[in-house]
Amino acid sequence: MSSSKRIEQNLPLTIYGLKSVLIHPKDNIFEILCDSLDAANLSFEDGDILVIAESALATSENRLVLLDSVSPSADAFCYSKTTGLDAREVELILQESEHVFGGVSGVLLTLWNGILCPNAGIDNSNAPEGYVILYPKNPSKSAQQIMYSAAKRFKKRIGVIIADSRTQPLRLGCTGVAIGAAGFEAVLDKRGEKDLFGKSLHITRIAAADILASAAEAVMGECGECIPFALIRNSFAVMNPNAAGVLTIPADECMYLGCLKKQD
Amino acid sequence: MSSSKRIEQNLPLTIYGLKSVLIHPKDNIFEILCDSLDAANLSFEDGDILVIAESALATSENRLVLLDSVSPSADAFCYSKTTGLDAREVELILQESEHVFGGVSGVLLTLWNGILCPNAGIDNSNAPEGYVILYPKNPSKSAQQIMYSAAKRFKKRIGVIIADSRTQPLRLGCTGVAIGAAGFEAVLDKRGEKDLFGKSLHITRIAAADILASAAEAVMGECGECIPFALIRNSFAVMNPNAAGVLTIPADECMYLGCLKKQD
Repeated sequence: MSSSKRIEQNLPLTIYGLKSVLIHPKDNIFEILCDSLDAANLSFEDGDILVIAESALATSENRLVLLDSVSPSADAFCYSKTTGLDAREVELILQESEHVFGGVSGVLLTLWNGILCPNAGIDNSNAPEGYVILYPKNPSKSAQQIMYSAAKRFKKRIGVIIADSRTQPLRLGCTGVAIGAAGFEAVLDKRGEKDLFGKSLHITRIAAADILASAAEAVMGECGECIPFALIRNSFAVMNPNAAGVLTIPADECMYLGCLKKQD
Repeated sequence: MSSSKRIEQNLPLTIYGLKSVLIHPKDNIFEILCDSLDAANLSFEDGDILVIAESALATSENRLVLLDSVSPSADAFCYSKTTGLDAREVELILQESEHVFGGVSGVLLTLWNGILCPNAGIDNSNAPEGYVILYPKNPSKSAQQIMYSAAKRFKKRIGVIIADSRTQPLRLGCTGVAIGAAGFEAVLDKRGEKDLFGKSLHITRIAAADILASAAEAVMGECGECIPFALIRNSFAVMNPNAAGVLTIPADECMYLGCLKKQD
């Protein structure tokens, strides 16, 4: 359903949290999702957006690494000293990231596939003792595969977001961020549209995927709730079965990096 | 309704966008809100979160400034040269902000009441020609007053968020951010709770106000839609009539500022 039609009909945006069983390595996440939908007495409708917690997807993709199997390099020991992170975890962070911006206590700020994230997305929360979970290998590709599976099984066109939580500059607490997306426009370009006074808007782009990833956090929880999926209905998402990926910008176009890098 | 009760009953989170008439300086925003609720055939329930676009609140608070009435200082002319911003707008930005981190084309990154924001929240979108809109004077206090008005009129305990849109580091497009809040816990502290494997979580705080501000962006739009209010029902918000304010952190506790400031 188009955004204007939704607004006309005054249909509220609706978000269902979907519980699942505990997901294990090599589980088929789409089958688990279908069971979760069944248990909630829900099915897909055209235009629905499915949000999947990245840790659930990564677990199903067997992205768990036993820390004892990792041999840290000299660089890893060096960053381990400055951040207090386990040197074996640092070694994985260095292997997974394209760039390390710097570190503070407990965190290396890294670039992973163009996405700014702490510790290259590596986390030990919701991992078995002694293990860490890497980010899914290619979250947008996985999102696309789940979109295809939903099209085949349910005959519906949905969008899929792979979501993580993220702190924002100078804010306490995490919101949501899309690290992968497929089936809809991740960013809505409103440049050229008019404001309330009929003036053209100059720089308004809406990060639809990130907004919906954040909205899903409101039902998914981050702890032991086992709600790895959220189903978003009647959203403003603009469906596009060929769209895949999240939209990042290079460092030299970023307001934060441009303004902060000369601080001391 | 408590979060666990909501999950048990499997009630979906629901977000209604509320259209309004065009808001003018010195309008009573609470009365306009009540009309919008009536027109949508909605009323408040206990635990609802009302999200208000900051520009709508700021307009009702008469925070419009005619640029022609502003005399730029030498500092303003200097920043105007490096950013390309109108020197009169820069003058207002310098007056409104506690700190300027730096500037790039079109933007000064500033601190406003502890909140990191471009141009001290000053914007000409949705302002009449020749005017800019400053941030509301004290958004959390205004949120509290609207909460009290709702309690009096509807006999319901609601939470209120004053929301703005914001880009995130290295991302294209805007999500939502709370610049004021009242009536609920702006941040949920999950430290000490257990993950899926029963391990204690170390650093998990959930930015509830920012998540709900983002979720509201999905129905409010940023352009000429005239949807300045969103009503969020069945959210995970933890109500607290005494809570007011959003939670920021000092620069020396921020991962981004800590890691980026030494870049060149």
